[in-house]
Amino acid sequence: MLALYHFGPVANSLTPLLCLLEKGLAFDNRVLDSRKWEHHDPAFRAINPNGVVPVLVHEGRTVGESTVINEYLEDVFPEVPLRPADPWLRAEMRVLTKYVDEYFCPALTTIGAHGATPFASKIDKAEMAARLANMPDEEVRRKWATVSETGYSDEELADARRKLGNCIARLEGILDGGRPWLLGEFYSLADIKWYSMAPALPRVMPEACNPDATPRIAAWLERMAARPAVLALPDYAPKR
Amino acid sequence: MLALYHFGPVANSLTPLLCLLEKGLAFDNRVLDSRKWEHHDPAFRAINPNGVVPVLVHEGRTVGESTVINEYLEDVFPEVPLRPADPWLRAEMRVLTKYVDEYFCPALTTIGAHGATPFASKIDKAEMAARLANMPDEEVRRKWATVSETGYSDEELADARRKLGNCIARLEGILDGGRPWLLGEFYSLADIKWYSMAPALPRVMPEACNPDATPRIAAWLERMAARPAVLALPDYAPKR
Repeated sequence: MLALYHFGPVANSLTPLLCLLEKGLAFDNRVLDSRKWEHHDPAFRAINPNGVVPVLVHEGRTVGESTVINEYLEDVFPEVPLRPADPWLRAEMRVLTKYVDEYFCPALTTIGAHGATPFASKIDKAEMAARLANMPDEEVRRKWATVSETGYSDEELADARRKLGNCIARLEGILDGGRPWLLGEFYSLADIKWYSMAPALPRVMPEACNPDATPRIAAWLERMAARPAVLALPDYAPKR
Repeated sequence: MLALYHFGPVANSLTPLLCLLEKGLAFDNRVLDSRKWEHHDPAFRAINPNGVVPVLVHEGRTVGESTVINEYLEDVFPEVPLRPADPWLRAEMRVLTKYVDEYFCPALTTIGAHGATPFASKIDKAEMAARLANMPDEEVRRKWATVSETGYSDEELADARRKLGNCIARLEGILDGGRPWLLGEFYSLADIKWYSMAPALPRVMPEACNPDATPRIAAWLERMAARPAVLALPDYAPKR
């Protein structure tokens, strides 16, 4: 009845995966291997012509975009609510997921994609050209063209790191006042969305995000890591 | 009970303004004059510390982000529905509003902000420095620093125009099959969000967006322009 196509428990793929697990919903676990470019294969493009994951298939209908998938899961399966009933808190939640989609994720993607340059630059030029020609999404194609050729410029990387610094400050600020979750007492899709990206922060920005500098983020990451749904995530990683 | 702070019927300010009018909701109409930088004044920053419009105030609580405001209005005032009941169509709607926020709006903002360079570069340097220092949002400050100094580079402008070309193709494609509105028969927040930006397309990209090249967009823009709520918009423009 439900199937999730994804890359494993990381970044945008983690967003709906964690939502499904928190809700205790059974689903077909369809892990694609990004390093084999399975998401650009005809089999997956028959499901999502854009060749982008994650994608949820429910009763034969396809839903894309991780944040939208989670709102869809709330609309259809409200039994374990991850969206607060109070409309104002709900708006807060949406402001927070929107910020990740528009600001945090693009900055982290620049750093992450740049990190793939050693991998991508080793690919045979003719093979890479064929891979690029097979990428249906123009922005994805442009990203991989950059990554496989020069990587991002120092200026672009510095700008991405500046933005990640703002994400750290924002997250530490949100968690002010001893609240356990981003909306306060209510664990929500905002925690799930931020947790899809935030574990990278202490790794990418150790000087700015560490238990001394950002104790609230450190404590929230620990609370997240202890949730049964999060503990189950390794089972959904690609088998390599 | 309801108040909307906005810049008038254009871009992100148009999004909640049109939603309120379509729903027939009474509201305090608080138009700020962007050319007087009223949104950075202490009076408005007491309402939104970020100094960003639009902002909705409802029963003393503030909601920001145009797309989130409209979901809030749906949650609180569902009587005139602009969000479809079918969860899959609802997801489609959210994919479409997200695309405007993440792709269409930033590209159009680059073109629009660059167009403000003649205005911004005429401002006395010391005054502009004071204005910049008074801007609470870092990304807005950086945008105006660029606009008041050099404007955007040819490469950045070309990239923005490339993206607007993709927006035109996507909108024309969505309207395929004679559907009157973006989701089909149901007029929704997706039409409102796209209409907040789309009237600029024939003006900014006349060679790509015109009645011959994109007849469906032209017909949709006409249908939108004929809606009573859209006809009422000039009443909400700044008085200059």
